[in-house]
Amino acid sequence: MPSPVFHDRPVFPRGFRCASRNVGLKPTAKDLALFASDVDAAAAAIFTRNHFPGAPVIVGREIIQSGRLRAVLVNSKVSNVATGKTGIANVRRMAAAAATELGTSPESVLVSSTGVIGVPLPIDLIERGVRGIAADLQDNPLVGAEGIMTTDSHPKALSTSVGNSTITWVAKGSGMIEPNMATMLAYIFTDAALDAITLDRMLRAAADVSFNMLSVDTDTSTSDTCAILANGLAGAVDETLFVDALIAGCTRMTEILARDGEGAKRMIRANVRGALNNYEAKRVAKSLVNSPLVKTMVAGADPNVGRLLMAVGKCFDCTITPANTDAWINGHPVVVGGQRLDFEDALVRATLSGEVVDLEVSLGVGNGEARAFGCDLTAGYVEENAAYYSS
Amino acid sequence: MPSPVFHDRPVFPRGFRCASRNVGLKPTAKDLALFASDVDAAAAAIFTRNHFPGAPVIVGREIIQSGRLRAVLVNSKVSNVATGKTGIANVRRMAAAAATELGTSPESVLVSSTGVIGVPLPIDLIERGVRGIAADLQDNPLVGAEGIMTTDSHPKALSTSVGNSTITWVAKGSGMIEPNMATMLAYIFTDAALDAITLDRMLRAAADVSFNMLSVDTDTSTSDTCAILANGLAGAVDETLFVDALIAGCTRMTEILARDGEGAKRMIRANVRGALNNYEAKRVAKSLVNSPLVKTMVAGADPNVGRLLMAVGKCFDCTITPANTDAWINGHPVVVGGQRLDFEDALVRATLSGEVVDLEVSLGVGNGEARAFGCDLTAGYVEENAAYYSS
Repeated sequence: MPSPVFHDRPVFPRGFRCASRNVGLKPTAKDLALFASDVDAAAAAIFTRNHFPGAPVIVGREIIQSGRLRAVLVNSKVSNVATGKTGIANVRRMAAAAATELGTSPESVLVSSTGVIGVPLPIDLIERGVRGIAADLQDNPLVGAEGIMTTDSHPKALSTSVGNSTITWVAKGSGMIEPNMATMLAYIFTDAALDAITLDRMLRAAADVSFNMLSVDTDTSTSDTCAILANGLAGAVDETLFVDALIAGCTRMTEILARDGEGAKRMIRANVRGALNNYEAKRVAKSLVNSPLVKTMVAGADPNVGRLLMAVGKCFDCTITPANTDAWINGHPVVVGGQRLDFEDALVRATLSGEVVDLEVSLGVGNGEARAFGCDLTAGYVEENAAYYSS
Repeated sequence: MPSPVFHDRPVFPRGFRCASRNVGLKPTAKDLALFASDVDAAAAAIFTRNHFPGAPVIVGREIIQSGRLRAVLVNSKVSNVATGKTGIANVRRMAAAAATELGTSPESVLVSSTGVIGVPLPIDLIERGVRGIAADLQDNPLVGAEGIMTTDSHPKALSTSVGNSTITWVAKGSGMIEPNMATMLAYIFTDAALDAITLDRMLRAAADVSFNMLSVDTDTSTSDTCAILANGLAGAVDETLFVDALIAGCTRMTEILARDGEGAKRMIRANVRGALNNYEAKRVAKSLVNSPLVKTMVAGADPNVGRLLMAVGKCFDCTITPANTDAWINGHPVVVGGQRLDFEDALVRATLSGEVVDLEVSLGVGNGEARAFGCDLTAGYVEENAAYYSS
């Protein structure tokens, strides 16, 4: 599949705009973002599998049943998780505030919150902050991306064209990320005409090989949300081309999130092939990007073959035959038949100084394959998360 | 079960002695240890479940079938993993060298190696180093413990009395530890008279609630080995008292290993009760001690309730009902019915400055319970493992 060309600067599809503000949740940075379509859009969404979903996820699952959305309202700093009935009521108040601004119904507004867990949402500040935000709506996706950041080092947006239509991705996330069903927060906007059922199918297929294969730190957020809105203003689109572009953009955004993992200096891509089936390939690929010893090996730019084999071998329930196992680091063969090759250490070590490290493993027991995305583990991750105060 | 009294200084049971030396694998530190019984001992052992077991594990599984051992020979620095047929031959050469020294057969010597993976074992140095080591055998377990250290900050040994008999534990391990079947290397010596089948049953029961519930970094070594040798010189023992002491000593040694986790400042104990069954309780307890965000929270002494709930909630396949979930940090209630309590933050924070952090979770859905052991994640872990050179 040919990789689509991403625009140099992200743009919105026809009829989509966004705005962001500081409403007082953070000292000065943007902490509220609104994404809106001029007309109702067909929509689909997937949410975290964590057993303690935030109030916005609980309400979002209900809202998305209609298959229609007009807008997405997101606050950062406080996640509205473990907040009980008040938390649920506050989600509805956020949706109502945005709906009033846009002249639509609260049931067509998806709400997300991200930030600290277990703290009451300062709903008064948010309601006050939403007032008049419709007048700020403009056409640069990065403005909205800025309003949803937490520990992200930069706002994340991306766009591409498919025929007459545009697809735009806006996302945030850098810690507490092993989505399993979505990245922390990712919103996809398009003016292609697609119905909600088709969108749902396409979104799940794309997330399955992208966001769901991302792990910064094995920790699955209680707020993960990935939604797609299609307002149809560009008319019909070639569905095959569209889904290819959707997968490519989700994969690219996954790489952007991995690269911006908390404290990360390098992105890790683990490619596994020859597994018994795709499920086992995913397990092994995830084991590689999740292993602290593999992650610190990448941070230290050390071609430690033993750690690769250890991470593959600890997938106890997968079919792994040492004699069939080969491995490569950045294209250089380092393991053949389960044994460490006598490779040129300095050569491989030199390739590890780049921003992307590709680990490849061939298991030689079937046709299953998978790719997982992660990042190195540095003292920066530890410092950032040990210093994070929950209150 | 009353906790046994551990001796102030570890001693050996009757008929056991040990020796350690530097044979040139490390620059100057001890790198070879021999543990020997004066007479053949009944024995049992459990090994790593990693799919890439080291050559000593492959041979050890074969050796232990006889249910008899006379000695254990261990080298540190090089693990003899991913070394093919030469690796296997080198294990047999190590066993033969020790057997010659002790006047016994190679089949009664268990061999372990720990250290870097994928590097050929310097067998000539080891064979030369073993010569004459029988003359060094003496009765302080810490001398043997010193010879098997890698990144351990101190040698680890422990002993207690059961009736007329003694049990002594010698272990090493501080990184690449989520044993699932054993800690990295743990040897248990006793002069009680017990047969191999009884020892095997007792060892598995004890490891199940101790070493197998330990995780420093989720990474399962390819060399994990836990063996028990009973030479019978003290005669019969009350089996109930013995197994209680065995479990208590394995648990105590597990805590010593957790506390000495690479870079660790604090030990974490996660107690889970009210789970659907013991299996689900173990899953949740392990999730707590394995979560990087929980581990950094402990490092930062921050009572971050959201991270606790996140780590419980990401056990997707377990039965978790937010409304039934309560949690405590060092005995202070912090969650009731899935919601964060408005607890006195400074009070709980102050308790987190100690060396032991107890996290308790009650799931309220059944009678399953489990306890897992781990440690905090500090910049020290990252620095140690990013700086580790594999060649």
